Amino acid sequence: MREHGGNLDLARERFGGRAGDWIDLSTGINRLPYPPGEIDAQSWRALPSRSEIEALHRAARHAYRTEAPVVALGGAQAVIQGLPQLAPRGRARILAPTYNEYAGVLASAGWDVEEVNTCEALAGADLAIVVNPNNPDGRTHARDELLALLPRVGRLVVDESFADAAPQLSLAPDAGRPGLLILRSFGKFYGLAGLRLGFALGHDDDMSALSAMAGPWPVSGAAIEVGCRALRDDDWARATSARLMRDCSRLDDLVQRRGWRLVGGASLFRLYEMEDAGAAQERLARGRIWSRVFARSPNWLRLGLPGPESEWTRLAEVLAD
Amino acid sequence: MREHGGNLDLARERFGGRAGDWIDLSTGINRLPYPPGEIDAQSWRALPSRSEIEALHRAARHAYRTEAPVVALGGAQAVIQGLPQLAPRGRARILAPTYNEYAGVLASAGWDVEEVNTCEALAGADLAIVVNPNNPDGRTHARDELLALLPRVGRLVVDESFADAAPQLSLAPDAGRPGLLILRSFGKFYGLAGLRLGFALGHDDDMSALSAMAGPWPVSGAAIEVGCRALRDDDWARATSARLMRDCSRLDDLVQRRGWRLVGGASLFRLYEMEDAGAAQERLARGRIWSRVFARSPNWLRLGLPGPESEWTRLAEVLAD
Repeated sequence: MREHGGNLDLARERFGGRAGDWIDLSTGINRLPYPPGEIDAQSWRALPSRSEIEALHRAARHAYRTEAPVVALGGAQAVIQGLPQLAPRGRARILAPTYNEYAGVLASAGWDVEEVNTCEALAGADLAIVVNPNNPDGRTHARDELLALLPRVGRLVVDESFADAAPQLSLAPDAGRPGLLILRSFGKFYGLAGLRLGFALGHDDDMSALSAMAGPWPVSGAAIEVGCRALRDDDWARATSARLMRDCSRLDDLVQRRGWRLVGGASLFRLYEMEDAGAAQERLARGRIWSRVFARSPNWLRLGLPGPESEWTRLAEVLAD
Repeated sequence: MREHGGNLDLARERFGGRAGDWIDLSTGINRLPYPPGEIDAQSWRALPSRSEIEALHRAARHAYRTEAPVVALGGAQAVIQGLPQLAPRGRARILAPTYNEYAGVLASAGWDVEEVNTCEALAGADLAIVVNPNNPDGRTHARDELLALLPRVGRLVVDESFADAAPQLSLAPDAGRPGLLILRSFGKFYGLAGLRLGFALGHDDDMSALSAMAGPWPVSGAAIEVGCRALRDDDWARATSARLMRDCSRLDDLVQRRGWRLVGGASLFRLYEMEDAGAAQERLARGRIWSRVFARSPNWLRLGLPGPESEWTRLAEVLAD
């Protein structure tokens, strides 16, 4: 298992407490989720039908503002798992540092994996990976920059798992061009990571290949039902984007008093630099707040945004201690 | 898309009606499902943790009476999707006729696929597939027969999607032996196909490979929560097995009056032979009861078991017309 946020098991092993005692800020999952509501009995019982899956695809196209072919899968992670089989093994280049599953999954499948630091250095790769906005540092790339890269690589994967609140960055409207593959996560912005839902948007050939890998029933009935409702709820999305923007500033202000420096971030997480991130993680953990540190960057600590006011209060108290 | 039961879209296109008007007997999904209950907010929100997934694995070992390594995936179908990558391409032999996804998935992945009619003819295959009890004809194979086959094939896959009510047939207690891979479906017996949950049981190497293919969050929080409850509920399983046995006899009696002949079946479906199965399917469909016919066997009609008494009544009425 590669290291991930959301690993409360590890927090509890090291610092104790029951899962419910913890405020988990180690991920970029919205802590004020879309209300899943009551699930229809039929969604539990029946195999998802083709027409239900197509309704979910239409809802995704609506939310992501595209007419492109789309495929629903069990999380953006499920798309990553399928990447190595979309083309014969070759040279993958990943704009790093970023989400560690790309390098892990591709290397395990026998791809030659190189991490590079600039968009320019991705050129020439058979498979180029850009997370936009990037996790964990929030680095962004303009649409034009990525479209200029597209003809210079075999396939360009743009992971927009954290782009919901920044639609101006999204290449989803350009999806469908050969060689361009967009990933979208449902669980992060909508705060329902346990539902396991994500989308690939792209060219018909890639969508057919991913769909064949996933089989006829790639997502649960509950994912279809909640996904259709949430992705059509423009008011909720607008209000949530605005709230996340306010909360980012609020968190930046709060931790600045401790002397932490903002490195970057997206709407669902912030990355801070400090002298000893391990010590900071421990201090937070003693107050049952779990955060994310990075083995390769001992000065970095990533924090998700607290949700209810009670979580902000506890964070402020723990930071003030 | 290959032809499958549960395709109410097709029923509605051909015969009209809303989805809720239909009694879907075209699958082998229990129509008196395990009550999913209220899903905990945390199961929707958080990424499934390693300890939660391990609790689900323990519950599966309990229900399937084995100590073997197990991996939870998004349905037995998800295990089938992974089969082609468990070993280098070779010769697959499938005991036929059976569930059509095996031949489809393996052939698409470049395997040489042969359908055979006897267990003996599976010998020599790199990958041998037996569905036990078989779908759609209910043919069964004794444990000894399959264990004798094991050393004569590269890998033996035993699909026990319909074995819940026939534990004496199960090779789950033998799982863990090299080359033996058992598939279990959760959704059929527990009547919750929309949850997308199934299991592979087998040798550590195969389990690690399937687990790596599925990634760190292979099933939803709801699947873990409901799966843990249901798989530990021995009373429900016992009562359901007994009820299904009674209902099989009841269905056989009911259709015999129409002159349909029982070919075979398992605890969740029955296969009947008649002069013109297409005409019989149409008659049932006019009464909004959907059944399964098979292009290759024009005299066969498969029926799942009705659930509530109202469904039995409607079936009796439609058959009497």
